[in-house]
Amino acid sequence: MYPKAFENLIEQLKHLPGVGSKTAERYAYSVLDWKQEEANAFIEAIKEIQSINYCEICGNLSEDKVCSICGNEERNKNIICVVQQPKDILAIEKSQTYKGVYHVLNGEISATKGIMPEDINIASLIERMTPTTQEVIIATNPTAEGETTALYIARLLEAKGINVTRIAHGIPMGGHLDYADELTLIKAMEGRKAI
Amino acid sequence: MYPKAFENLIEQLKHLPGVGSKTAERYAYSVLDWKQEEANAFIEAIKEIQSINYCEICGNLSEDKVCSICGNEERNKNIICVVQQPKDILAIEKSQTYKGVYHVLNGEISATKGIMPEDINIASLIERMTPTTQEVIIATNPTAEGETTALYIARLLEAKGINVTRIAHGIPMGGHLDYADELTLIKAMEGRKAI
Repeated sequence: MYPKAFENLIEQLKHLPGVGSKTAERYAYSVLDWKQEEANAFIEAIKEIQSINYCEICGNLSEDKVCSICGNEERNKNIICVVQQPKDILAIEKSQTYKGVYHVLNGEISATKGIMPEDINIASLIERMTPTTQEVIIATNPTAEGETTALYIARLLEAKGINVTRIAHGIPMGGHLDYADELTLIKAMEGRKAI
Repeated sequence: MYPKAFENLIEQLKHLPGVGSKTAERYAYSVLDWKQEEANAFIEAIKEIQSINYCEICGNLSEDKVCSICGNEERNKNIICVVQQPKDILAIEKSQTYKGVYHVLNGEISATKGIMPEDINIASLIERMTPTTQEVIIATNPTAEGETTALYIARLLEAKGINVTRIAHGIPMGGHLDYADELTLIKAMEGRKAI
Protein backbone atom coordinates (compact mmCIF):
# COMPACT_ATOMS: atom_id res chain seq x y z
CA MET A 1 0.00 0.00 0.00
CA TYR A 2 2.89 2.40 0.67
CA PRO A 3 4.89 3.62 -2.34
CA LYS A 4 7.55 1.06 -3.29
CA ALA A 5 10.50 3.25 -2.25
CA PHE A 6 8.96 3.71 1.19
CA GLU A 7 8.31 -0.02 1.64
CA ASN A 8 11.87 -0.69 0.55
CA LEU A 9 13.29 1.73 3.12
CA ILE A 10 11.22 0.06 5.85
CA GLU A 11 12.67 -3.31 4.81
CA GLN A 12 16.21 -1.91 4.90
CA LEU A 13 15.74 -0.31 8.31
CA LYS A 14 14.71 -3.71 9.66
CA HIS A 15 18.35 -4.77 9.18
CA LEU A 16 19.22 -2.75 12.29
CA PRO A 17 19.30 -4.96 15.41
CA GLY A 18 16.02 -5.22 17.29
CA VAL A 19 14.11 -3.13 14.75
CA GLY A 20 10.75 -4.61 13.71
CA SER A 21 8.09 -3.40 11.28
CA LYS A 22 6.58 -0.75 13.57
CA THR A 23 9.90 0.84 14.54
CA ALA A 24 11.20 0.67 10.96
CA GLU A 25 8.03 2.43 9.81
CA ARG A 26 8.56 5.17 12.40
CA TYR A 27 12.18 5.57 11.32
CA ALA A 28 11.16 5.68 7.66
CA TYR A 29 8.71 8.53 8.30
CA SER A 30 11.51 10.41 10.02
CA VAL A 31 13.93 9.79 7.12
CA LEU A 32 11.21 11.07 4.79
CA ASP A 33 11.20 14.39 6.63
CA TRP A 34 14.99 14.78 6.48
CA LYS A 35 16.38 17.59 4.40
CA GLN A 36 18.62 16.66 1.47
CA GLU A 37 21.76 17.59 3.47
CA GLU A 38 20.70 15.46 6.42
CA ALA A 39 20.16 12.42 4.21
CA ASN A 40 23.50 13.02 2.48
CA ALA A 41 25.37 13.26 5.80
CA PHE A 42 23.77 9.99 6.88
CA ILE A 43 24.71 8.27 3.62
CA GLU A 44 28.28 9.58 3.89
CA ALA A 45 28.59 8.23 7.43
CA ILE A 46 27.55 4.75 6.27
CA LYS A 47 29.96 4.91 3.33
CA GLU A 48 32.85 6.00 5.53
CA ILE A 49 32.29 3.22 8.03
CA GLN A 50 33.37 0.83 5.28
CA SER A 51 36.88 2.26 5.66
CA ILE A 52 37.08 1.18 9.30
CA ASN A 53 39.20 -1.87 9.94
CA TYR A 54 40.16 -3.97 12.89
CA CYS A 55 43.64 -3.39 14.37
CA GLU A 56 46.08 -6.03 13.05
CA ILE A 57 47.49 -6.57 16.52
CA CYS A 58 44.60 -6.43 18.98
CA GLY A 59 41.39 -6.52 16.90
CA ASN A 60 40.16 -3.13 18.13
CA LEU A 61 38.33 -0.79 15.73
CA SER A 62 40.84 1.31 13.83
CA GLU A 63 41.11 3.59 10.84
CA ASP A 64 44.77 2.59 10.43
CA LYS A 65 46.36 -0.85 10.33
CA VAL A 66 47.34 -0.52 13.99
CA CYS A 67 44.98 1.11 16.52
CA SER A 68 45.87 4.15 18.63
CA ILE A 69 46.44 2.05 21.76
CA CYS A 70 48.73 -0.55 20.18
CA GLY A 71 50.57 2.30 18.43
CA ASN A 72 51.09 4.21 21.68
CA GLU A 73 54.72 3.90 22.89
CA GLU A 74 53.70 4.65 26.47
CA ARG A 75 51.41 1.64 26.85
CA ASN A 76 52.88 -1.47 28.48
CA LYS A 77 52.85 -4.15 25.77
CA ASN A 78 53.61 -6.88 28.30
CA ILE A 79 50.23 -6.65 29.98
CA ILE A 80 47.28 -7.66 27.80
CA CYS A 81 43.64 -7.24 28.79
CA VAL A 82 41.28 -9.57 26.91
CA VAL A 83 37.81 -8.18 26.17
CA GLN A 84 34.87 -9.33 24.07
CA GLN A 85 34.10 -6.17 22.13
CA PRO A 86 35.72 -2.85 21.17
CA LYS A 87 33.19 -1.06 23.37
CA ASP A 88 34.58 -2.86 26.42
CA ILE A 89 37.90 -1.12 25.71
CA LEU A 90 36.04 2.19 25.78
CA ALA A 91 34.58 1.38 29.19
CA ILE A 92 37.99 0.47 30.67
CA GLU A 93 39.72 3.46 29.07
CA LYS A 94 37.15 5.79 30.63
CA SER A 95 38.24 4.58 34.07
CA GLN A 96 41.84 5.69 33.27
CA THR A 97 43.14 2.89 35.45
CA TYR A 98 44.84 0.67 32.91
CA LYS A 99 48.11 1.33 31.08
CA GLY A 100 48.59 -2.00 29.29
CA VAL A 101 47.24 -3.03 25.88
CA TYR A 102 44.13 -4.96 24.84
CA HIS A 103 43.04 -7.96 22.85
CA VAL A 104 39.52 -8.00 21.38
CA LEU A 105 37.97 -11.45 20.93
CA ASN A 106 35.06 -10.07 18.89
CA GLY A 107 32.70 -12.59 20.38
CA GLU A 108 32.40 -15.33 22.96
CA ILE A 109 32.41 -19.11 22.87
CA SER A 110 28.79 -20.27 22.82
CA ALA A 111 27.69 -23.85 22.29
CA THR A 112 24.06 -22.81 21.80
CA LYS A 113 24.91 -20.26 19.12
CA GLY A 114 27.49 -22.60 17.57
CA ILE A 115 30.38 -20.19 18.17
CA MET A 116 33.54 -22.24 18.59
CA PRO A 117 36.94 -21.10 19.90
CA GLU A 118 38.25 -20.88 16.32
CA ASP A 119 35.47 -18.43 15.40
CA ILE A 120 36.78 -15.71 17.71
CA ASN A 121 40.23 -14.08 18.00
CA ILE A 122 41.84 -16.62 20.32
CA ALA A 123 44.58 -17.92 18.00
CA SER A 124 45.88 -14.37 17.48
CA LEU A 125 45.99 -13.89 21.26
CA ILE A 126 48.14 -17.00 21.73
CA GLU A 127 50.46 -15.74 18.98
CA ARG A 128 50.95 -12.49 20.88
CA MET A 129 52.56 -14.23 23.84
CA THR A 130 56.31 -13.48 24.14
CA PRO A 131 58.88 -14.32 26.81
CA THR A 132 58.42 -10.78 28.17
CA THR A 133 54.62 -11.10 28.59
CA GLN A 134 53.93 -10.41 32.27
CA GLU A 135 50.20 -10.88 32.60
CA VAL A 136 47.01 -11.56 30.68
CA ILE A 137 43.93 -10.08 32.37
CA ILE A 138 40.70 -11.69 31.22
CA ALA A 139 37.83 -9.20 31.26
CA THR A 140 35.11 -11.11 29.40
CA ASN A 141 31.56 -10.55 30.67
CA PRO A 142 30.48 -12.51 33.79
CA THR A 143 27.85 -14.46 31.83
CA ALA A 144 27.82 -18.22 31.19
CA GLU A 145 29.43 -17.69 27.77
CA GLY A 146 31.91 -15.11 29.04
CA GLU A 147 33.01 -17.42 31.86
CA THR A 148 33.40 -20.36 29.47
CA THR A 149 35.51 -18.22 27.18
CA ALA A 150 37.62 -16.98 30.12
CA LEU A 151 38.23 -20.51 31.35
CA TYR A 152 39.11 -21.80 27.88
CA ILE A 153 41.67 -19.04 27.32
CA ALA A 154 43.09 -19.38 30.84
CA ARG A 155 43.76 -23.11 30.33
CA LEU A 156 45.52 -22.48 27.02
CA LEU A 157 47.73 -19.71 28.41
CA GLU A 158 48.54 -21.41 31.71
CA ALA A 159 49.82 -24.40 29.71
CA LYS A 160 52.29 -21.94 28.24
CA GLY A 161 53.30 -20.73 31.69
CA ILE A 162 51.63 -17.33 31.31
CA ASN A 163 50.35 -15.47 34.38
CA VAL A 164 46.58 -15.24 33.78
CA THR A 165 44.19 -13.19 35.95
CA ARG A 166 40.46 -12.47 35.88
CA ILE A 167 38.99 -9.08 36.82
CA ALA A 168 37.15 -9.09 40.15
CA HIS A 169 33.41 -9.61 40.38
CA GLY A 170 31.28 -8.54 43.32
CA ILE A 171 28.90 -5.88 44.55
CA PRO A 172 29.22 -2.79 42.33
CA MET A 173 30.35 0.39 44.10
CA GLY A 174 27.34 2.38 45.24
CA GLY A 175 25.23 -0.78 44.96
CA HIS A 176 23.11 -2.26 47.71
CA LEU A 177 23.50 -5.78 49.03
CA ASP A 178 19.79 -6.50 48.94
CA TYR A 179 19.61 -5.65 45.24
CA ALA A 180 22.50 -7.96 44.31
CA ASP A 181 21.66 -11.31 42.75
CA GLU A 182 22.75 -14.60 44.30
CA LEU A 183 25.64 -15.25 41.94
CA THR A 184 27.08 -11.77 42.49
CA LEU A 185 26.91 -12.31 46.25
CA ILE A 186 28.67 -15.69 45.94
CA LYS A 187 31.42 -14.01 43.86
CA ALA A 188 31.63 -11.17 46.39
CA MET A 189 32.03 -13.62 49.27
CA GLU A 190 34.58 -15.76 47.43
CA GLY A 191 36.60 -12.70 46.49
CA ARG A 192 36.68 -11.18 50.00
CA LYS A 193 39.91 -9.55 51.10
CA ALA A 194 41.46 -8.59 54.45
CA ILE A 195 40.96 -4.90 55.29
CA MET B 1 37.91 7.20 21.75
CA TYR B 2 36.21 5.40 18.85
CA PRO B 3 37.60 6.05 15.36
CA LYS B 4 36.15 9.26 13.91
CA ALA B 5 34.07 7.52 11.22
CA PHE B 6 32.46 5.33 13.87
CA GLU B 7 31.69 8.28 16.16
CA ASN B 8 30.24 10.09 13.18
CA LEU B 9 27.95 7.19 12.29
CA ILE B 10 26.72 7.06 15.91
CA GLU B 11 25.90 10.77 15.70
CA GLN B 12 24.02 10.27 12.43
CA LEU B 13 22.03 7.33 13.77
CA LYS B 14 20.87 9.53 16.64
CA HIS B 15 18.83 11.46 14.06
CA LEU B 16 16.36 8.56 14.01
CA PRO B 17 13.44 9.19 16.39
CA GLY B 18 13.90 7.91 19.93
CA VAL B 19 17.45 6.73 19.30
CA GLY B 20 19.95 7.73 22.00
CA SER B 21 23.68 7.10 22.37
CA LYS B 22 23.41 3.48 23.52
CA THR B 23 21.02 2.40 20.76
CA ALA B 24 22.95 4.35 18.12
CA GLU B 25 26.13 2.57 19.25
CA ARG B 26 24.42 -0.80 18.95
CA TYR B 27 23.16 0.09 15.47
CA ALA B 28 26.62 1.34 14.44
CA TYR B 29 28.22 -1.99 15.44
CA SER B 30 25.65 -3.77 13.32
CA VAL B 31 26.28 -1.47 10.33
CA LEU B 32 29.98 -2.20 10.76
CA ASP B 33 29.30 -5.89 10.24
CA TRP B 34 27.23 -5.35 7.09
CA LYS B 35 28.60 -6.62 3.83
CA GLN B 36 29.30 -4.06 1.09
CA GLU B 37 26.07 -5.03 -0.76
CA GLU B 38 23.98 -4.65 2.38
CA ALA B 39 25.34 -1.15 3.01
CA ASN B 40 24.78 -0.23 -0.62
CA ALA B 41 21.17 -1.45 -0.58
CA PHE B 42 20.59 0.64 2.56
CA ILE B 43 22.14 3.73 1.00
CA GLU B 44 20.08 3.25 -2.18
CA ALA B 45 16.87 3.02 -0.14
CA ILE B 46 17.62 6.32 1.57
CA LYS B 47 18.47 7.97 -1.75
CA GLU B 48 15.28 6.71 -3.39
CA ILE B 49 13.09 7.97 -0.58
CA GLN B 50 14.03 11.48 -1.71
CA SER B 51 11.95 10.86 -4.84
CA ILE B 52 8.80 10.33 -2.78
CA ASN B 53 6.38 13.24 -2.75
CA TYR B 54 3.10 14.06 -1.18
CA CYS B 55 -0.01 13.76 -3.38
CA GLU B 56 -1.00 17.20 -4.72
CA ILE B 57 -4.64 16.56 -3.92
CA CYS B 58 -4.77 14.72 -0.59
CA GLY B 59 -1.25 14.92 0.90
CA ASN B 60 -0.75 11.12 0.96
CA LEU B 61 2.69 9.67 0.19
CA SER B 62 3.07 9.18 -3.54
CA GLU B 63 5.70 8.51 -6.16
CA ASP B 64 3.60 10.42 -8.72
CA LYS B 65 1.99 13.84 -8.47
CA VAL B 66 -1.34 12.25 -7.61
CA CYS B 67 -1.55 9.21 -5.31
CA SER B 68 -3.09 5.87 -6.32
CA ILE B 69 -6.25 6.53 -4.32
CA CYS B 70 -6.96 10.02 -5.71
CA GLY B 71 -6.12 8.70 -9.18
CA ASN B 72 -8.55 5.77 -8.85
CA GLU B 73 -11.73 6.40 -10.89
CA GLU B 74 -13.73 3.99 -8.73
CA ARG B 75 -13.28 5.93 -5.49
CA ASN B 76 -16.06 8.32 -4.50
CA LYS B 77 -14.51 11.78 -4.61
CA ASN B 78 -17.49 13.29 -2.81
CA ILE B 79 -16.73 11.60 0.50
CA ILE B 80 -13.46 12.72 2.12
CA CYS B 81 -11.96 11.09 5.19
CA VAL B 82 -9.58 13.40 7.10
CA VAL B 83 -6.59 11.66 8.79
CA GLN B 84 -3.45 12.89 10.54
CA GLN B 85 -0.84 10.74 8.82
CA PRO B 86 -0.38 8.60 5.69
CA LYS B 87 -0.18 5.51 7.91
CA ASP B 88 -3.74 6.15 9.07
CA ILE B 89 -4.82 5.67 5.45
CA LEU B 90 -3.07 2.31 5.46
CA ALA B 91 -4.99 1.25 8.56
CA ILE B 92 -8.35 2.23 7.09
CA GLU B 93 -7.55 0.69 3.69
CA LYS B 94 -6.72 -2.62 5.39
CA SER B 95 -10.26 -2.73 6.75
CA GLN B 96 -11.58 -2.54 3.14
CA THR B 97 -14.65 -0.69 4.39
CA TYR B 98 -14.16 2.72 2.84
CA LYS B 99 -14.59 3.66 -0.82
CA GLY B 100 -14.20 7.44 -0.59
CA VAL B 101 -10.97 9.46 -0.76
CA TYR B 102 -8.72 10.87 1.94
CA HIS B 103 -7.15 14.10 3.13
CA VAL B 104 -3.90 13.91 5.11
CA LEU B 105 -3.35 16.78 7.57
CA ASN B 106 0.27 15.74 8.21
CA GLY B 107 0.04 16.77 11.85
CA GLU B 108 -2.37 18.04 14.47
CA ILE B 109 -3.11 21.40 16.05
CA SER B 110 -1.12 21.59 19.29
CA ALA B 111 -0.82 24.70 21.41
CA THR B 112 1.98 23.16 23.51
CA LYS B 113 4.07 22.25 20.46
CA GLY B 114 3.21 25.54 18.75
CA ILE B 115 1.52 23.84 15.79
CA MET B 116 -1.14 26.20 14.48
CA PRO B 117 -3.97 25.44 12.02
CA GLU B 118 -1.96 27.05 9.20
CA ASP B 119 0.96 24.62 9.83
CA ILE B 120 -1.06 21.57 8.77
CA ASN B 121 -3.02 20.81 5.58
CA ILE B 122 -6.31 22.45 6.56
CA ALA B 123 -6.43 25.19 3.93
CA SER B 124 -6.08 22.61 1.14
CA LEU B 125 -8.96 20.62 2.68
CA ILE B 126 -11.26 23.65 2.60
CA GLU B 127 -10.28 24.23 -1.03
CA ARG B 128 -11.36 20.70 -1.91
CA MET B 129 -14.97 21.37 -0.96
CA THR B 130 -17.31 21.47 -3.98
CA PRO B 131 -21.10 21.68 -4.30
CA THR B 132 -21.11 17.89 -4.84
CA THR B 133 -19.21 17.12 -1.60
CA GLN B 134 -21.50 14.79 0.39
CA GLU B 135 -19.61 14.20 3.60
CA VAL B 136 -16.33 14.87 5.41
CA ILE B 137 -15.48 12.13 7.92
CA ILE B 138 -12.97 13.30 10.53
CA ALA B 139 -10.74 10.42 11.66
CA THR B 140 -8.07 12.25 13.68
CA ASN B 141 -6.80 10.40 16.75
CA PRO B 142 -8.95 10.53 19.90
CA THR B 143 -6.28 12.50 21.84
CA ALA B 144 -6.56 16.04 23.16
CA GLU B 145 -4.78 17.39 20.05
CA GLY B 146 -6.70 15.15 17.68
CA GLU B 147 -10.03 16.26 19.19
CA THR B 148 -9.03 19.92 19.02
CA THR B 149 -8.10 19.50 15.38
CA ALA B 150 -11.37 17.67 14.65
CA LEU B 151 -13.43 20.40 16.30
CA TYR B 152 -11.55 23.18 14.51
CA ILE B 153 -12.10 21.59 11.10
CA ALA B 154 -15.74 20.74 11.87
CA ARG B 155 -16.54 24.39 12.72
CA LEU B 156 -14.91 25.63 9.51
CA LEU B 157 -16.73 23.13 7.31
CA GLU B 158 -20.11 23.42 9.02
CA ALA B 159 -19.96 27.17 8.38
CA LYS B 160 -19.82 26.23 4.70
CA GLY B 161 -22.83 23.94 5.08
CA ILE B 162 -20.81 20.73 4.70
CA ASN B 163 -22.03 17.51 6.34
CA VAL B 164 -19.24 16.68 8.83
CA THR B 165 -19.04 13.43 10.80
CA ARG B 166 -16.59 11.96 13.30
CA ILE B 167 -15.69 8.24 13.40
CA ALA B 168 -17.16 6.40 16.40
CA HIS B 169 -15.17 5.89 19.59
CA GLY B 170 -15.92 3.19 22.14
CA ILE B 171 -14.88 -0.21 23.40
CA PRO B 172 -12.70 -1.88 20.73
CA MET B 173 -14.05 -5.16 19.33
CA GLY B 174 -12.68 -8.10 21.29
CA GLY B 175 -11.86 -5.72 24.13
CA HIS B 176 -12.98 -6.09 27.72
CA LEU B 177 -15.02 -3.50 29.59
CA ASP B 178 -12.86 -3.68 32.69
CA TYR B 179 -9.71 -2.87 30.68
CA ALA B 180 -11.26 0.21 29.07
CA ASP B 181 -10.27 3.62 30.44
CA GLU B 182 -12.83 6.05 31.79
CA LEU B 183 -12.90 8.31 28.74
CA THR B 184 -13.44 5.39 26.38
CA LEU B 185 -16.34 4.21 28.55
CA ILE B 186 -17.88 7.70 28.55
CA LYS B 187 -17.60 7.78 24.74
CA ALA B 188 -19.05 4.27 24.52
CA MET B 189 -22.03 5.27 26.65
CA GLU B 190 -22.62 8.52 24.79
CA GLY B 191 -22.47 6.74 21.46
CA ARG B 192 -24.89 3.93 22.39
CA LYS B 193 -27.33 2.76 19.75
CA ALA B 194 -30.62 0.85 19.76
CA ILE B 195 -30.19 -2.83 18.92
